[in-house]
Amino acid sequence: MASIFGHRFRVATFGESHGPVVGAVIDGCPAGLALDVDAIQAELDRRRPGQSALTSPRKEPDRVEVLSGVFEGTTLGTPILLLVRNVDARSADYAPQKDLWRPSHADFTYDAKYGVRDWRGGGRASARETVGRVLAGAVARQVLATAGVEIVAWVDRVADVEGHVDPENVSRAAVEAHPTRCPDAAAAEAMARCIEGARAAGDTVGGVVRCVARGVPVGLGEPVADKLEADLAKALLSLPAARGVEVGSGFAGTRLRGSQHNDPFVAVDGAVRTRTNHSGGIQGGISNGMPVVVGVGFKPVATIQQKQATVDREGQAAELEPGGRHDPCVLPRAVPIVEAMVALVLCDHWLLHRTSRLHSAD
Amino acid sequence: MASIFGHRFRVATFGESHGPVVGAVIDGCPAGLALDVDAIQAELDRRRPGQSALTSPRKEPDRVEVLSGVFEGTTLGTPILLLVRNVDARSADYAPQKDLWRPSHADFTYDAKYGVRDWRGGGRASARETVGRVLAGAVARQVLATAGVEIVAWVDRVADVEGHVDPENVSRAAVEAHPTRCPDAAAAEAMARCIEGARAAGDTVGGVVRCVARGVPVGLGEPVADKLEADLAKALLSLPAARGVEVGSGFAGTRLRGSQHNDPFVAVDGAVRTRTNHSGGIQGGISNGMPVVVGVGFKPVATIQQKQATVDREGQAAELEPGGRHDPCVLPRAVPIVEAMVALVLCDHWLLHRTSRLHSAD
Amino acid sequence: MASIFGHRFRVATFGESHGPVVGAVIDGCPAGLALDVDAIQAELDRRRPGQSALTSPRKEPDRVEVLSGVFEGTTLGTPILLLVRNVDARSADYAPQKDLWRPSHADFTYDAKYGVRDWRGGGRASARETVGRVLAGAVARQVLATAGVEIVAWVDRVADVEGHVDPENVSRAAVEAHPTRCPDAAAAEAMARCIEGARAAGDTVGGVVRCVARGVPVGLGEPVADKLEADLAKALLSLPAARGVEVGSGFAGTRLRGSQHNDPFVAVDGAVRTRTNHSGGIQGGISNGMPVVVGVGFKPVATIQQKQATVDREGQAAELEPGGRHDPCVLPRAVPIVEAMVALVLCDHWLLHRTSRLHSAD
Amino acid sequence: MASIFGHRFRVATFGESHGPVVGAVIDGCPAGLALDVDAIQAELDRRRPGQSALTSPRKEPDRVEVLSGVFEGTTLGTPILLLVRNVDARSADYAPQKDLWRPSHADFTYDAKYGVRDWRGGGRASARETVGRVLAGAVARQVLATAGVEIVAWVDRVADVEGHVDPENVSRAAVEAHPTRCPDAAAAEAMARCIEGARAAGDTVGGVVRCVARGVPVGLGEPVADKLEADLAKALLSLPAARGVEVGSGFAGTRLRGSQHNDPFVAVDGAVRTRTNHSGGIQGGISNGMPVVVGVGFKPVATIQQKQATVDREGQAAELEPGGRHDPCVLPRAVPIVEAMVALVLCDHWLLHRTSRLHSAD
Repeated sequence: MASIFGHRFRVATFGESHGPVVGAVIDGCPAGLALDVDAIQAELDRRRPGQSALTSPRKEPDRVEVLSGVFEGTTLGTPILLLVRNVDARSADYAPQKDLWRPSHADFTYDAKYGVRDWRGGGRASARETVGRVLAGAVARQVLATAGVEIVAWVDRVADVEGHVDPENVSRAAVEAHPTRCPDAAAAEAMARCIEGARAAGDTVGGVVRCVARGVPVGLGEPVADKLEADLAKALLSLPAARGVEVGSGFAGTRLRGSQHNDPFVAVDGAVRTRTNHSGGIQGGISNGMPVVVGVGFKPVATIQQKQATVDREGQAAELEPGGRHDPCVLPRAVPIVEAMVALVLCDHWLLHRTSRLHSAD
Repeated sequence: MASIFGHRFRVATFGESHGPVVGAVIDGCPAGLALDVDAIQAELDRRRPGQSALTSPRKEPDRVEVLSGVFEGTTLGTPILLLVRNVDARSADYAPQKDLWRPSHADFTYDAKYGVRDWRGGGRASARETVGRVLAGAVARQVLATAGVEIVAWVDRVADVEGHVDPENVSRAAVEAHPTRCPDAAAAEAMARCIEGARAAGDTVGGVVRCVARGVPVGLGEPVADKLEADLAKALLSLPAARGVEVGSGFAGTRLRGSQHNDPFVAVDGAVRTRTNHSGGIQGGISNGMPVVVGVGFKPVATIQQKQATVDREGQAAELEPGGRHDPCVLPRAVPIVEAMVALVLCDHWLLHRTSRLHSAD
Repeated sequence: MASIFGHRFRVATFGESHGPVVGAVIDGCPAGLALDVDAIQAELDRRRPGQSALTSPRKEPDRVEVLSGVFEGTTLGTPILLLVRNVDARSADYAPQKDLWRPSHADFTYDAKYGVRDWRGGGRASARETVGRVLAGAVARQVLATAGVEIVAWVDRVADVEGHVDPENVSRAAVEAHPTRCPDAAAAEAMARCIEGARAAGDTVGGVVRCVARGVPVGLGEPVADKLEADLAKALLSLPAARGVEVGSGFAGTRLRGSQHNDPFVAVDGAVRTRTNHSGGIQGGISNGMPVVVGVGFKPVATIQQKQATVDREGQAAELEPGGRHDPCVLPRAVPIVEAMVALVLCDHWLLHRTSRLHSAD
Repeated sequence: MASIFGHRFRVATFGESHGPVVGAVIDGCPAGLALDVDAIQAELDRRRPGQSALTSPRKEPDRVEVLSGVFEGTTLGTPILLLVRNVDARSADYAPQKDLWRPSHADFTYDAKYGVRDWRGGGRASARETVGRVLAGAVARQVLATAGVEIVAWVDRVADVEGHVDPENVSRAAVEAHPTRCPDAAAAEAMARCIEGARAAGDTVGGVVRCVARGVPVGLGEPVADKLEADLAKALLSLPAARGVEVGSGFAGTRLRGSQHNDPFVAVDGAVRTRTNHSGGIQGGISNGMPVVVGVGFKPVATIQQKQATVDREGQAAELEPGGRHDPCVLPRAVPIVEAMVALVLCDHWLLHRTSRLHSAD
């Protein structure tokens, strides 16, 4: 429901952008994980604004507090409360806009749905809500690591600037080497220029983040409603500014013929593999042991530093002044968030899969 | 879970391709709907194979039986069982393949997950499973019609042949006018030639189906986990052969700048509208009253009429002979199925939205 | 939701008493079970009316049809559709009552909730709905049997006539030996006389069914919301005419002191056991390896063969004439139904428990 | 799942007894409620230990913090985080018991299920977990109050001492007038003596709490799986030490004949009522507008001030010394907790009911 993700590894996020806290409760985390809180903090640091000239100057120390579900460093199987305090909120920046609906933001729809809205910093619709997802995703990632799963996302395209990245080999180190989080160095530089150009124009740009999960066991996914790609799509399209999701060859693959697109099976050292991976590691909704590859399209940020026409709460024409502190491009910061969502889905299905057979294969 | 869609308007589909039946149970359909069974049958007829030279020659009379939940023509609020008998199954066609894994099919992953597989006609992984979705979607569509919602999908692209269709005005009549279900007549003809070319080569093609829902009330969608676009993406990526989903401007929109992409609000006759609709009718996960527009990319059909390399259940290299009766392109038949999935999601959220406020707005 | 039971082993029942069918779909049954359809039929036969002079004379051949989810006798992990056709419905019997609300039946509340009601034979509120539960429960029972779980219920009390039965040793054979399904022979005879006395007076009686599950593995149950006893209570109180549930020592145990009630742990052949079993096999919401024991109180059947005062749909005072074919006591037929519900809950938790730890214990 | 209650008004509780916090997140609270935080605090105060000589001397200031989901005093429709800090935990008291399994506690089963356990104060299995339920229940109660629903629970029996209380008229003031929370003054005195007698003997007692909800609208409850009494039973049997639940006439009613037990309908000022209320306000799983009445049996507290035989984690026989700070009887403090659980269930179904009909009745 509303703010609860997942079937078995369930995550309830909470918090408004300028409220006292943001965070998440995980219900269904398996017992016995030696939880590395520093690793959770590290993910949070990757998501934090103010990391480079490319991102929002808002400064949030963003320290995670683990307040339940862990005893002497080990998960108990009970709910894990993960909490971060908001400390650098400047609500006054938003006061001029509280009775206006910012174009392509959620102001109008929240008002229309709920009849009330926390206008400070976008309230619940702020990207700050993703703190809770990153926290929970960092736990999921640790669960998955015990099964040998590794997740790496990167910025694959900014506006029309496209990188060339090999999902089989891309590493986090390569991703983190540049503030754009594009591991293709030449493309990264071009992307940075593109973002700077947009910022200079008081404008914003979008693009595509791709993510690979390597080492995913065969058998994850619950056809037909909860196919692995279906749950990945849901998780990823629930991210702010996400407008499209694709798996494997995605939309490009729809231009191929079947004879080009099919992935022939081969036996490699006794294991079944496919020669190509147009399927993106998922066939019939179930992981096939190849790298799981997904892409997410993010629209350009809606907050621009230009005047815009809009209407106010009374339906009168009005003009919106620029303001607030915002990224000209969300892509670099979206990288750890996309990884978090992929981790949540894979962890959930990793647990669910244990119930698929009469005699558990684990 | 596995085969159950939805939060409140819940649909459990069942059935294997060559088993005795396929269908669905709807749990949570509101009471008081004068159910039009002929309209359900009409949707089933649209989905049926054998409608034109472009689709599979498999002939299924496909008669819906409504076996519970309706009394004197009106829904009772109790579960509705919708059932179709399978009658033209030729299981023997598949016998030669029962110990081989067909490339880019679900044979290997089902075997790997469950340890057992109904190899006849793809079993549960067959597109025949979508009969249950179309049945339930036809009921959802009737529910939504009482609220003034109209849903139209069409084939927007086949391989590289693209139509030009206006979501604001496209009609079902225009869609049904050509066997390709592309309402752009010139493109439709080119698509038909493209499909025939693939068939002649023993090959297959993919493409994109788009769908618009007009008249969607403002306020549908449950942020942040169950955003309207997130649930649409999940529903659509759970379809066989679907590899990507986009909403509104989608991936194309990720190439624009914010100043180009934002949808300015305007007041029209007292109602709030947006001048453009790059948002595809959804902002912050909630419908804004504009047409909801989604696109789904379908890969080329995996069953081709060519020899293919694969491995068998013992992991030995093998060769797969062509066979079975299959569409060279699923797009035309996917149109009613995409509409069904969109209807299921909108109907679910239409009901859920009634619980958003202390005092129901309805 | 409404008609769907369970978390992972999910059961959607459907059907009205005088509609064409009743039955269930199971979503989440593990793959690999050699399904014994005769054993399902046997449970259905135990539930059937017309078995003895003590039960309703309505005759339903009640043949189960397994229509999906099974291939060559083995469960596929896909949804299992279980269906029974209704053949001996005499709807005309109910016509005189269609505009009256029968006291302590669901006529008024269904009308009030849904605005429409299938008045034929109680419609969805009929005990005939439990056919679907018995079908699904029979599958759950077979799943559990592979883990060594055995479930036996019996009639423990009819009105004031109480049996003395030892949950550790009671067998199905002993239960089935008498039409009352009370394995205490002397009590069984007294119960039969009590039921006959009620029938002769045009009246009805209630009582208590108890159920034991032996061989339940340690560790089933999900605290704190989905404790094993909580889910058992929900399942059992969802039965028609059920008015109370207790686990272990139940209400009688609330009269003891802690020093009398506590179950001391003892080690028996290396296994941890408790010397007494006031806990009824569940501590802190989790099974402890001792027999799980529950009791369900059923009110006297609401349909009596006497005139009753009521009101009609217009709220006018009216008189209800006796009629219809009904059991003077539901207890004997409730025995297989209670077993089915216990099986559903245990099977669900047996699967869920596999996800409790990082490294599955199975 | 595990720690999440409810269908639409969903509550995830978190926290261990001696961890830093306990509390709850509510997902699905409707927007537009003017939240009275003092009223939440008042419920917390009623639950708190140390209120009288009859309860545990543990002192917890227990101050609620509302950390999300509320803006300028009004609920936003977004998740509400309710948190209480633990401050008077004396974990050292429990150290001697960390390798022993206390009889009729959850030590053994948590160890068996999860392989790890927070032994400090019972960890997650402590009654301190109910703080989160009381917090969320206090919000649900405020939601329901806008619909005219009033909920009152009381201690109805302690061991063999029974009160005589009329559910139609009992008031909170009468309940709060005596530390036992039995509104029958004479019985209250006898109960207090009974509890004191148990304490003097180093022993404990159990009993029954009853609860009435008046003003419940007609139509709440979702047959057949989520009948109102089924969800009430689940909620109440998920409480620590609860061993039985009954609705309306409950187990006593199972001794009556149908002609005595049926509730005749009568029209009173145009409204449909029943002359008696053996049904406890629920028929066919749906509220009928009469007072909803439930009873919960609580076993005697497992922690007694006497030596007890047990085994340790190695399965060796051991002796448990008395210790810790515990109530000799949980009943008085269970009163606000039972009310909270009833409020959660009714609020959930109040929202769900809005989706029952095509045209909402609200």
